[in-house]
Amino acid sequence: MFSFSTSGTRLSARSGILELMDDLGRALTTDPGMRMLGGGNPAHIPAIDAVWRRRMTELMHDGDALERTLGNYDPPQGNPPFLKSLAAFLNRHCGWDLTPAHLAITAGGQSAFFYLFNLLAGPMPDGTSRRILLPLVPEYIGYANQGLHPDLFLACQPEIEELSPHEFKYRVSFPRVEAALAQGNIGAICVSRPTNPTGNVLTNDEISRLSDLALAAGIPLIIDNAYGLPFPGAIFTDATPLFADHIILTLSLSKLGLPGTRTGIVVARPEIASAVAAMTSVIGLANTNAGQQLVKPLLDSDELLHLSRQIIRPFYETRSLEAGQWFHEAFADTPGWSLHRCEGSFFRWLRLTHLPISSRELYQRLKSRQVLVVPGEDFFFGLPDPWPHSTQCLRLNCSGNPETVQEAIGIIADEVKTLQFA
Amino acid sequence: MFSFSTSGTRLSARSGILELMDDLGRALTTDPGMRMLGGGNPAHIPAIDAVWRRRMTELMHDGDALERTLGNYDPPQGNPPFLKSLAAFLNRHCGWDLTPAHLAITAGGQSAFFYLFNLLAGPMPDGTSRRILLPLVPEYIGYANQGLHPDLFLACQPEIEELSPHEFKYRVSFPRVEAALAQGNIGAICVSRPTNPTGNVLTNDEISRLSDLALAAGIPLIIDNAYGLPFPGAIFTDATPLFADHIILTLSLSKLGLPGTRTGIVVARPEIASAVAAMTSVIGLANTNAGQQLVKPLLDSDELLHLSRQIIRPFYETRSLEAGQWFHEAFADTPGWSLHRCEGSFFRWLRLTHLPISSRELYQRLKSRQVLVVPGEDFFFGLPDPWPHSTQCLRLNCSGNPETVQEAIGIIADEVKTLQFA
Repeated sequence: MFSFSTSGTRLSARSGILELMDDLGRALTTDPGMRMLGGGNPAHIPAIDAVWRRRMTELMHDGDALERTLGNYDPPQGNPPFLKSLAAFLNRHCGWDLTPAHLAITAGGQSAFFYLFNLLAGPMPDGTSRRILLPLVPEYIGYANQGLHPDLFLACQPEIEELSPHEFKYRVSFPRVEAALAQGNIGAICVSRPTNPTGNVLTNDEISRLSDLALAAGIPLIIDNAYGLPFPGAIFTDATPLFADHIILTLSLSKLGLPGTRTGIVVARPEIASAVAAMTSVIGLANTNAGQQLVKPLLDSDELLHLSRQIIRPFYETRSLEAGQWFHEAFADTPGWSLHRCEGSFFRWLRLTHLPISSRELYQRLKSRQVLVVPGEDFFFGLPDPWPHSTQCLRLNCSGNPETVQEAIGIIADEVKTLQFA
Repeated sequence: MFSFSTSGTRLSARSGILELMDDLGRALTTDPGMRMLGGGNPAHIPAIDAVWRRRMTELMHDGDALERTLGNYDPPQGNPPFLKSLAAFLNRHCGWDLTPAHLAITAGGQSAFFYLFNLLAGPMPDGTSRRILLPLVPEYIGYANQGLHPDLFLACQPEIEELSPHEFKYRVSFPRVEAALAQGNIGAICVSRPTNPTGNVLTNDEISRLSDLALAAGIPLIIDNAYGLPFPGAIFTDATPLFADHIILTLSLSKLGLPGTRTGIVVARPEIASAVAAMTSVIGLANTNAGQQLVKPLLDSDELLHLSRQIIRPFYETRSLEAGQWFHEAFADTPGWSLHRCEGSFFRWLRLTHLPISSRELYQRLKSRQVLVVPGEDFFFGLPDPWPHSTQCLRLNCSGNPETVQEAIGIIADEVKTLQFA
């Protein structure tokens, strides 16, 4: 065995995101029999897949565009014509005043967060140390292990609002957030909206209050908009996208059906965007080109907005609501089950308060029955105190083949009933 | 201004690689008038570009292969069928005994080095700190800023062997390497072969001695094979690829003409390969798929070997030797110029011992005359003592359009003469 460094040991340790991506990738490439409700792979929506096939055909007939896409390095900040089109698109539809200098492309949204978190938190030049404040957990599993230094995150337990016997919603606990900020060692506030894993969408009021708190503290508010507006539009409430000089917004092409291209987008004041571009050059040299080349004309023509509104949003909303029905049918009067309200993303978030085992153990049992889910534990990182709720939840990607999803929900319900009535 | 962390400040600082990639990307996307001898963009070899166009056409006609390539996440280690084909290809042609567990895909070779350097060096769990030993600088500019912690590299000044009045070759100074190793805080030895920036190819004897030293020290020898064998084959000597349980070999699809796909490959004992895959999941979630999908059948059929030997190697060798001729013509009896012996890579490395200004200043002057080169200074990192030689060199990518390269060499010679006879 060779010796690994402290940072290397941390970054290469067993992690929830590694397990999730390994499960997902293997199910997609080598184990097609697995009922795949894990991971965050977007659905293969026929009308969307057809658009990317059309665009690839167009690219191949556009002179040497294919050769430039495969064979040329772009600047680390991203492809200049793409950045120009993207700034114009966002300005047109969100009423912002962005220039290409406000944008930086990364090798997927995950990389953007690795850069941003470690840029804004950790040991500081003045000898202090800063952390990233998560106003509401459960929060995206992929953040959990991204700190170059331990204890990167400080998370706040939310309020749980019981909406009906089988539906609840997380609410930001502002007293807890304000108490955490008062500690004074926070480098940035971060939320995903829609929240991965729960499908929660922070209200315009919650976002506005978080923005005010960040501004008052002189730190950025990072909003992970991978599932949000204006694209891909997997959001089912009247949430308004927000940008300001102290806000860092990230977008992604992944949930448009292009995860294999690894294309993330950072929207931020130019000093942040250029820091991200510099980190791209040092860590990854340049970005992948294909995603940007496929999408650019759809920005110019606004087709992307149409696809998001007319196809992507209805698709995921229908799938999520249908899955909710199947849970009601399969669980019926099983005690202790509820779902988070369906407001966005590809996921349903299942809470099981009467489960005699942990959600991690349930995940293992379901995997052995060819049902892949993501156990909730790894979404509750950064909490200062233990919270029993964190072992009672599962994240379920319900956007796949409806028969498979319904069948999987049936198996989950069967397993839960067997455990609870054993 | 928001405050940046210590690591963030380091990773986002002005760096040689950022300047190089910015120059390169802008020349390729927005300033076509620039005579581009900077950067490491591979040439658009018509026969190679035609192969990638053919492969993309095949992919589009292979059922839903395009949809899977664009729309599915692979496991963080890489695409399982690609890994299987690659292991078989390397075993077949190099006589090795690899399994897919010896392989990990990264988002380009640059990312592989960020992972490997910070995995094997920096602060260690036992409280000590380790460094990466570079047995010979000048070494690849892209490594220079990759350390999460300062002073990641310890470099050794090489011997300069004068082969003829206008040709020289760097040789590893083994007394210096052994003295550096004796300090005992080295986590890995690293060389690029062919060396980027000089086109130097470490001899089989030099590599064998470095391998023995690493083995004796219980540390890995990392060999950056981005330009080497068995692909892309931009190597003009009888160098033999080497692998062993303590060797970490990296390859890349970039110099095959696919830099826009960002596909790097790590070949290493399974504990290292799986650590790299884990770091991919945490830092980047998954890899890009396109490069692996385009290349896989060419591994299975051995077409890749044929392309490397019959097309790629002769192309770059011819371009490098031609460029050497143009230097002789343009510089003629100008005092103090010489080139590193041409043994591989896309580059010629020009030494100017009589230059009254630094190579960095010469770079600026040439840029204003629409000739883009890379100044030598940033390739001499990690040296414990100053070395005047480090301000006397330029790296020149001579693989572009021959008329442009010849014209650029003329302008460089003109500028040097003007400066030296001023």
